[in-house]
Amino acid sequence: MRAVDLIRRKRDGGELTAEEIRFLVGGIATAEVPNYQWSALTMAILWRGMTPVETAALVDAMLHSGTVIDLSDIPGPKVDKHSTGGVGDKTSLILAPVAAACGVTVPMVSGRGLGHTGGTLDKLESIPGFRIDQDLEAYRRIARECGLVLIGQTAEIAPADRVLYALRDATATVESIPLITASILSKKLAEGIDALVLDVKTGDGAFMATRDDARALAESMTRIGRQLGKPVQAVITSMDAPLGRAVGNAVEVWESIECLKGRGPADLMEVSLELAAEMLLLGGVAANREDAVGRCLRAIADGSALERFRRVIVAQGGDGRVCDDPLGVLPRAARVEPFRAAQSGFIAGIRAWPVGQASMLLGAGRPRVDSTIDPAAGIVFTKTVGDAVRAGDVIAQVHVNSTHAAAVPEALAMLADATTIAATPPPPRHLILERL
Amino acid sequence: MRAVDLIRRKRDGGELTAEEIRFLVGGIATAEVPNYQWSALTMAILWRGMTPVETAALVDAMLHSGTVIDLSDIPGPKVDKHSTGGVGDKTSLILAPVAAACGVTVPMVSGRGLGHTGGTLDKLESIPGFRIDQDLEAYRRIARECGLVLIGQTAEIAPADRVLYALRDATATVESIPLITASILSKKLAEGIDALVLDVKTGDGAFMATRDDARALAESMTRIGRQLGKPVQAVITSMDAPLGRAVGNAVEVWESIECLKGRGPADLMEVSLELAAEMLLLGGVAANREDAVGRCLRAIADGSALERFRRVIVAQGGDGRVCDDPLGVLPRAARVEPFRAAQSGFIAGIRAWPVGQASMLLGAGRPRVDSTIDPAAGIVFTKTVGDAVRAGDVIAQVHVNSTHAAAVPEALAMLADATTIAATPPPPRHLILERL
Repeated sequence: MRAVDLIRRKRDGGELTAEEIRFLVGGIATAEVPNYQWSALTMAILWRGMTPVETAALVDAMLHSGTVIDLSDIPGPKVDKHSTGGVGDKTSLILAPVAAACGVTVPMVSGRGLGHTGGTLDKLESIPGFRIDQDLEAYRRIARECGLVLIGQTAEIAPADRVLYALRDATATVESIPLITASILSKKLAEGIDALVLDVKTGDGAFMATRDDARALAESMTRIGRQLGKPVQAVITSMDAPLGRAVGNAVEVWESIECLKGRGPADLMEVSLELAAEMLLLGGVAANREDAVGRCLRAIADGSALERFRRVIVAQGGDGRVCDDPLGVLPRAARVEPFRAAQSGFIAGIRAWPVGQASMLLGAGRPRVDSTIDPAAGIVFTKTVGDAVRAGDVIAQVHVNSTHAAAVPEALAMLADATTIAATPPPPRHLILERL
Repeated sequence: MRAVDLIRRKRDGGELTAEEIRFLVGGIATAEVPNYQWSALTMAILWRGMTPVETAALVDAMLHSGTVIDLSDIPGPKVDKHSTGGVGDKTSLILAPVAAACGVTVPMVSGRGLGHTGGTLDKLESIPGFRIDQDLEAYRRIARECGLVLIGQTAEIAPADRVLYALRDATATVESIPLITASILSKKLAEGIDALVLDVKTGDGAFMATRDDARALAESMTRIGRQLGKPVQAVITSMDAPLGRAVGNAVEVWESIECLKGRGPADLMEVSLELAAEMLLLGGVAANREDAVGRCLRAIADGSALERFRRVIVAQGGDGRVCDDPLGVLPRAARVEPFRAAQSGFIAGIRAWPVGQASMLLGAGRPRVDSTIDPAAGIVFTKTVGDAVRAGDVIAQVHVNSTHAAAVPEALAMLADATTIAATPPPPRHLILERL
């Protein structure tokens, strides 16, 4: 079997067998299939696509390129959630403790932020002492003891994906739906989960900018997951505006704790509860959607969700007092600058993409993979879409340290660009667009 | 400028500027654009194509990745010929001395054979002592003294093409017309020539199997050459049957010398004279086609072409007596086995591809880039297309040494597969299919 012949077949629109795909993926570790062959192949896949059978074989081969964690000794369902990423998207920090409090174990392996999007790991690391680099033994132990665990990708999990993802990133082949499906599913299935909830963001600040692309990815993920015996429930949600009020790292942890105390903003709670409810349903711990949402709300009301969050923070080396006094424990920026309304009216929209860019400029995000971030930096909105404002009202507060203070004027200009103020109030927003 | 953005643009069907193409080609030597980015880009180019302006910029950038030889101190026109490769294609050994004898300097940088096709360098090396690895000083000197020089690609000539060609070969991106154009033209224009004749083979034994593909390559080459101020005259010729009677290395040198003595077979002479005449016309040493062919024929008749061949052989370290006594000087195989007609009738066709494969099995060709070849091995036809045969008549002699004797039955079976014998004579062959 020669890689060049398989590249040629895919290039010409043909299909690869499971055995051939195993050979290609296996060749990553042994260097029998060098990077330059894989990058040509990914371009051919982006061009010609892959059948569901090919995609499932690719997931399977990538999954088995590393350790597939076995959590079967932990009683009860193990369910995770994956989001395609957005601005202000902190649902993981909310739904994971909520689902854990409801009896679903959430063994979550997350990523870092890049460009205008934030990353769960960066947010967690803003909690003093929190360690996202736990070994597999600690991962198992914390999941068992806390009902949730929140770590970064380890070298053992789908190593072929690490190589392929870096290659795709460097060769403009990230957008291929079968390759995205394989990348996400191989990593998520390696966690030892029974089922997965997928949050596909669509809109201005989302990776999948169009609804059709979002639906295509959701369909691919659910189909391939089911094909591999792991139920995947996909929800398409709106990422036209930032989710919640806070965009950054420490500020998003603060807002997540507010949510776990029952004081979260409506849009963020809507999406978090929807996804948590799907996790309960997939895990079989709720009879129906209404029951699932009810259980989630009770876990917030009785403090058990916040208690789970405190427990996992402590188990991972963090300062648990953050749950009681977030503003006292979390890092805070030296300066807070207001972003004010230029005119009176109703906030018709706050585009997510420029807000994410502004947050990045303030130091809260990564322009490059190797950039360091400022955990205290970010943006906190005091007004949201639909609110009435008068000219000069504060719409948001920009949190910034001296290292990035020079970027404040540009960040404020981006916020102004992001914000539309209209004479009449906008129609109510629908964040849950579709369930697949 | 980032390579990934340029790959994305080409992937999406966009166009690259000359500056961007220079950046990409320049990045090969500095490794600023690693191989895996280039292989993704070549796949995107194969998919989306390149405009003539882009292709010309690519030729120019690849040409200037190395030394562009200056032969302006040699008086008179400098013209080369390039063939896309075939079976029994020894026209270079004939037309180069013929054109030199007519006042056109032929500074030829050639390649080796691969797969079913032969290579000029391998054929020349079957002449005892002949050295194809001449440095650039010797190249200039021999071209000036002999009117022709026949060497292999050196490290100085279009080094970017070496890297790209190896990458394309490993990633199934060889077939792209703009990439073929850039590969050929960058190497040929680096030779210091004023003009180029291109022999695009089409048919069973050719790289461009269809007439449309051949025409597309010919059109691309002539257009881009003219755009760069170097006239390119393309001729599409038939490669349905082997060219001439001999297929191999020493046997093809022998047949070339027969041609230079005026005893060549009609098909081989037709193509060689056509290409040589085009060289004379491009070089401006003949008034018209009839005049050009007449000059070529006189150079053969008066022995001046053979004398040029002898001179270049001696200048490159070879045994010049090969011109007088080829069978005495050239290596000869230990065994000669006949291939006989299975039935009586007329030879309707001898497919070039299986003949090339048979020759390779006998040791005359390279199954892999790093295979060694047997200079004495090969096939010599005693009958050709159109000839009448009786069952049992010898159609060809197979030349083989003990190292490859085991392959004789399979080689004979391939020759039988290649040969069609019909009840009626075939229509006359036309080898010159088109001029562009």
